[in-house]
Amino acid sequence: MKNTYFTPGPAELYPTVERHVKTALDEQVGSISHRSAQFRKIYQHADEQLRTLLSIPKTHAILFTGSATEVWERVLMNCVEHESFHLVNGAFSRKFYDFSVELGKFAQLYEKPVGEGFDYADVMEHGLPEYAELICLTANETATGAQMRPVDMHKLKRSHRSKLFCVDMVSSAPYPELDFELIDSAFFSVQKAFGLPAGLGVWIVNEKCLDKAERLRRAECTIGTYHSLPSLWKNYKNFETPETPNVWAIYLLGKVAEDFNRLGIETIRKETDAKAKLLYNFLEKDARFEPAVKNPTHRSATVVVANVKGSATDCVNRLKEAGMIIGSGYGNSKEKQIRIANFPAVSLQQVEKLIGLLKKT
Amino acid sequence: MKNTYFTPGPAELYPTVERHVKTALDEQVGSISHRSAQFRKIYQHADEQLRTLLSIPKTHAILFTGSATEVWERVLMNCVEHESFHLVNGAFSRKFYDFSVELGKFAQLYEKPVGEGFDYADVMEHGLPEYAELICLTANETATGAQMRPVDMHKLKRSHRSKLFCVDMVSSAPYPELDFELIDSAFFSVQKAFGLPAGLGVWIVNEKCLDKAERLRRAECTIGTYHSLPSLWKNYKNFETPETPNVWAIYLLGKVAEDFNRLGIETIRKETDAKAKLLYNFLEKDARFEPAVKNPTHRSATVVVANVKGSATDCVNRLKEAGMIIGSGYGNSKEKQIRIANFPAVSLQQVEKLIGLLKKT
Repeated sequence: MKNTYFTPGPAELYPTVERHVKTALDEQVGSISHRSAQFRKIYQHADEQLRTLLSIPKTHAILFTGSATEVWERVLMNCVEHESFHLVNGAFSRKFYDFSVELGKFAQLYEKPVGEGFDYADVMEHGLPEYAELICLTANETATGAQMRPVDMHKLKRSHRSKLFCVDMVSSAPYPELDFELIDSAFFSVQKAFGLPAGLGVWIVNEKCLDKAERLRRAECTIGTYHSLPSLWKNYKNFETPETPNVWAIYLLGKVAEDFNRLGIETIRKETDAKAKLLYNFLEKDARFEPAVKNPTHRSATVVVANVKGSATDCVNRLKEAGMIIGSGYGNSKEKQIRIANFPAVSLQQVEKLIGLLKKT
Repeated sequence: MKNTYFTPGPAELYPTVERHVKTALDEQVGSISHRSAQFRKIYQHADEQLRTLLSIPKTHAILFTGSATEVWERVLMNCVEHESFHLVNGAFSRKFYDFSVELGKFAQLYEKPVGEGFDYADVMEHGLPEYAELICLTANETATGAQMRPVDMHKLKRSHRSKLFCVDMVSSAPYPELDFELIDSAFFSVQKAFGLPAGLGVWIVNEKCLDKAERLRRAECTIGTYHSLPSLWKNYKNFETPETPNVWAIYLLGKVAEDFNRLGIETIRKETDAKAKLLYNFLEKDARFEPAVKNPTHRSATVVVANVKGSATDCVNRLKEAGMIIGSGYGNSKEKQIRIANFPAVSLQQVEKLIGLLKKT
């Protein structure tokens, strides 16, 4: 019997993926040239479906990398000459900051304790550094289950229009309703809420970021080679990529985004909310658990993290015996927390079944 | 009916791939954590099978990137402080050189006309620049079908032991019999002779390269972040990767490398030679074709390129009608040349069938 994966990525495959993989085999998608019309059609299809799903305007390109981790590096190399600014409240937002330090940028941060989130008001009170060129936000901190709401990100950008804003949507896309008239760049990977095998990063990025990268190149900054923003963008204009990309993953992403559009993004968001509500209600009522994020406004809808009284590892293992795979707490929280991914691939019924098992553990 | 792909990558999938993909779906390989024992076993299996196949000693790590194109960038960033040297005889060896220029290194080259190859003697006559830190060789120039023989690469290294040697094996691995006691680094991508869907680069690299990268880091050179050599190597020690990698591709690579080992590398090399001989014999005899590489010593066994009298595009199209997909000439040679990949995924019978069709076109 197959397991059900509630892990925050790699995660349960979206139910249609198996069918799409078999079609890809039948259509020999693994053998076609990445310089053929057939490939350009695959890229264009993924582009169109993602645009519809996430309301991405024409000002933004949709580019492909090997991972979302790669985008951390590429966006910093291409959009920051001197200074970046990061909101940090967990291991992944911290890594985004660390990358900037490693690249020799002057990286600044506003850090909050694990389990806390950011609002417009408190970020404004802290203030944004005057010379920061790129503001790096994390829609969903996968390590802690804390979200930053789009409304707060949008207000922050409206107060700082001259700065570029970049949003890490790794473990939340397509859930957050970002306004791409305001957000200059965002990115995610496909093995989270899109329910695909890992190996592809999706980088949504606008012309202002491209202009910045071109300015940096003229100033003889190192912006990279094949995956510099100008190189990716130039190829994108023909729905191509600089290198031979993960063609299968682009094909599958287009198909799953199409499936999502058929359902409708509003339905996906409502179902995500309904499942999240069930999970948080349970965690609040059951004495052995509590939501790790105290402030309900900051609780992620897509990665639900709970403090566990007793051993979290025991809890994870007992569920595993029943074929339900949940995530353990991240890093030091391994023994104290569990993480439950609430992605579109898991149904309301599966969430109810999980809660039923958690009650009995 | 399915096509047979003789394209030099993406190429025909190896016949066992479909079965392995279905097993991957059944075993939920797309959902497992990249920090789990199950993933480490997958990585270790691929590592062991590749070591056996290519005779890779313990001094070398086997690392995974998004593409071989990525390795061009990473090896230059991590192993060159000031100066690299490149043997250039086509579009791909030229791109390796271009990357070094783009990264702000002092890149030197010895260039030969398209269709020519390099020997030990003529490279020695040209000479290697005294201060070049990394010597970049291309085992098989995919654009032109010219090979450099391992024996010449090995002699060159023996004459320049203090320099790091890196070999691009993109469209030839596992065919060339490299001696990794001499070759410091080599790399390939999986969509060529391994017959897998694209989306994974394989980087074989030794401790001398790691030492160099660590020295560069101490000298405050930018060596990158998650895919710097020290970061990849540190994760490799646990059979892990810094980011969520293309888990499926690593799984499939291990399985196909195991299939190759079951056949035996000697058998694969002999079959490759036998098929190449058939193709070159035909090209030499048929008045409408000729091998693009004049010197038989420099003719690639894995990517056979031919000059065509008349329109190469017509030739490609006529074969396409019969379900045989061959590559057109690269870049400016599109109208004048054809390229035929001779990878393990195509059998002697399929090559004979292709030749039969070429005779009739």
